Amino acid sequence: MTSGSGSGGAPRGGIDLGGTKIQAVVVDERQIVLGEARHPTPTEGGPADVAAAMSAAMTEAAGLAGVRTDALAGVGVGSPGDVDAQHGTVTAARNLPDWEGEFALGDALEKALGSPARLGNDVQVATDAEFELGAGRPYRSVLGVFWGTGVGGGIVLEGRPWVGRGAGGEIGHVVVRIGGELCGCGRRGCLEAYAGRAAMERRARQRHKKGAKTELFKIMEERGRSRLMSGIWERALKRDDPLAVELIDDAIEALGAGVASVQNVLDVEAIIIGGGLGIRLGDPYARRIGDAMLPHLFDDLHPPAIHVAELGDLGGAIGAALLAVPASQPAV
Amino acid sequence: MTSGSGSGGAPRGGIDLGGTKIQAVVVDERQIVLGEARHPTPTEGGPADVAAAMSAAMTEAAGLAGVRTDALAGVGVGSPGDVDAQHGTVTAARNLPDWEGEFALGDALEKALGSPARLGNDVQVATDAEFELGAGRPYRSVLGVFWGTGVGGGIVLEGRPWVGRGAGGEIGHVVVRIGGELCGCGRRGCLEAYAGRAAMERRARQRHKKGAKTELFKIMEERGRSRLMSGIWERALKRDDPLAVELIDDAIEALGAGVASVQNVLDVEAIIIGGGLGIRLGDPYARRIGDAMLPHLFDDLHPPAIHVAELGDLGGAIGAALLAVPASQPAV
Repeated sequence: MTSGSGSGGAPRGGIDLGGTKIQAVVVDERQIVLGEARHPTPTEGGPADVAAAMSAAMTEAAGLAGVRTDALAGVGVGSPGDVDAQHGTVTAARNLPDWEGEFALGDALEKALGSPARLGNDVQVATDAEFELGAGRPYRSVLGVFWGTGVGGGIVLEGRPWVGRGAGGEIGHVVVRIGGELCGCGRRGCLEAYAGRAAMERRARQRHKKGAKTELFKIMEERGRSRLMSGIWERALKRDDPLAVELIDDAIEALGAGVASVQNVLDVEAIIIGGGLGIRLGDPYARRIGDAMLPHLFDDLHPPAIHVAELGDLGGAIGAALLAVPASQPAV
Repeated sequence: MTSGSGSGGAPRGGIDLGGTKIQAVVVDERQIVLGEARHPTPTEGGPADVAAAMSAAMTEAAGLAGVRTDALAGVGVGSPGDVDAQHGTVTAARNLPDWEGEFALGDALEKALGSPARLGNDVQVATDAEFELGAGRPYRSVLGVFWGTGVGGGIVLEGRPWVGRGAGGEIGHVVVRIGGELCGCGRRGCLEAYAGRAAMERRARQRHKKGAKTELFKIMEERGRSRLMSGIWERALKRDDPLAVELIDDAIEALGAGVASVQNVLDVEAIIIGGGLGIRLGDPYARRIGDAMLPHLFDDLHPPAIHVAELGDLGGAIGAALLAVPASQPAV
């Protein structure tokens, strides 16, 4: 693999900026991954430190792809928080350290990497990737449901991403029970308050403290983790752990109602389930979400197709790389 | 007013087919109403009888406008049920008599009126009218919320109607409380189960039977009605009737949660409140719905604008007339 300065053939970079990890990829013009690297997201410092860690991950991925970062046609970024793609800034990325105000992430990356950077919303970028390259390929209109720490949503309507005025797709904050459980966002009854992994862990810890029997925390310690990562839920479910089963049942009930509500409004062709839990738990649980939607679907004779995200953990970074098309080229 | 066979100037007809009334209008090229007629919807017979009543209403409106129906450039129809615009058929219009199967409404009207007929979904047609001519004029993306017997929703995104695969916009069947009240659709916890006038009447009758104090049914009898029409709720609210106040409060709470859920996903610029109750109760209640949305809005720093539908009771029929553009002319 050369650095590819020929017309259109230059590889592109993509970075998925998550609350716990930074995933970087370098892809060729057919979106084949040439190199990838994963670094932990800094938990201290501020936006500049996060940008430095992103640059380091991108530099490592480029090295594995045999290309210098300044030879990339561009670098795309899927970011949490309020993303201003036009100005290359990110504001209020609250899962990241000290990132309440506005930060010029695009400029910082361009300076460090020597390539043009383009920003997008993390969930929308992952949805676009599934739409272009993954489970959404056969369809024109899809809803991406990212079931992980929170519950994110991405929308593609007739081939075009829909983000509203910029804050759309917040499926995790669809209300499934007025006056219900407190959500991490401070509101009550949101889908995410039942189905987000962070909320599920909070409830598991409360229940465990009150004496509920569960192996969740034993598995967590065995795996040397301090949080209930998706793989820990998967293991506990395989052992029929009663608390894990109960909390996952609650999550699926909430996902059924919340996703069906959105489907009743959008009536898309297909729903793609991604995110840490969605990908780990895979097809059987995606089917359970589909079944839980049925009692709430208005057009229950024509339920949407339900698929697990095909691009897996790299989907966000590959989707980000789709953003990195030079301005002189048409979008993919 | 002549019958206007000149280029582009021929008046058009619009019919709003409702469960209780058929509203017909004839409009000029600037959508000014030249004539209008309102007939009751037949409660017996079948689709052919409904089509005959629609033709009669249209003929009366045309007569008042001084034009023969066969001189109209076309007649648009906003219909409930599953509307197949391409084939001019309506299926499963369950509020109408014996209208479960498919009926070629377009053909029936063309034959009776001598003008080309075009069909659309009633709620979408009313939303399009508000978007083009009413409260939605300043915006590119709006959500219409039609608060009446049920709760209907219409969506315009970047100037184009969004109906998904044809069944979108069912905001009344967004779930606001998992396992909640039984809805007229047979499902539980739908927005419409709390805010639809039919559901509110059902609850009022149950509560009244159990001894709850209310003047709702007294007002209904005084007005010579057998159902709790929107005007009856309005009168009871003006008298601070405790049951009316309580049920309207419940409805507004449910509308706040359900509409906010949809806004969290669509992030449109403006929400337009129409429907019998929405128009009757007007601005103060539209503001209350806006206030009830706030605790559930994810982007609560940028709530959407909230407006009452401007075209009032004629909005559906005027919107239907917008459909009646001859194929050789660009759409309005």
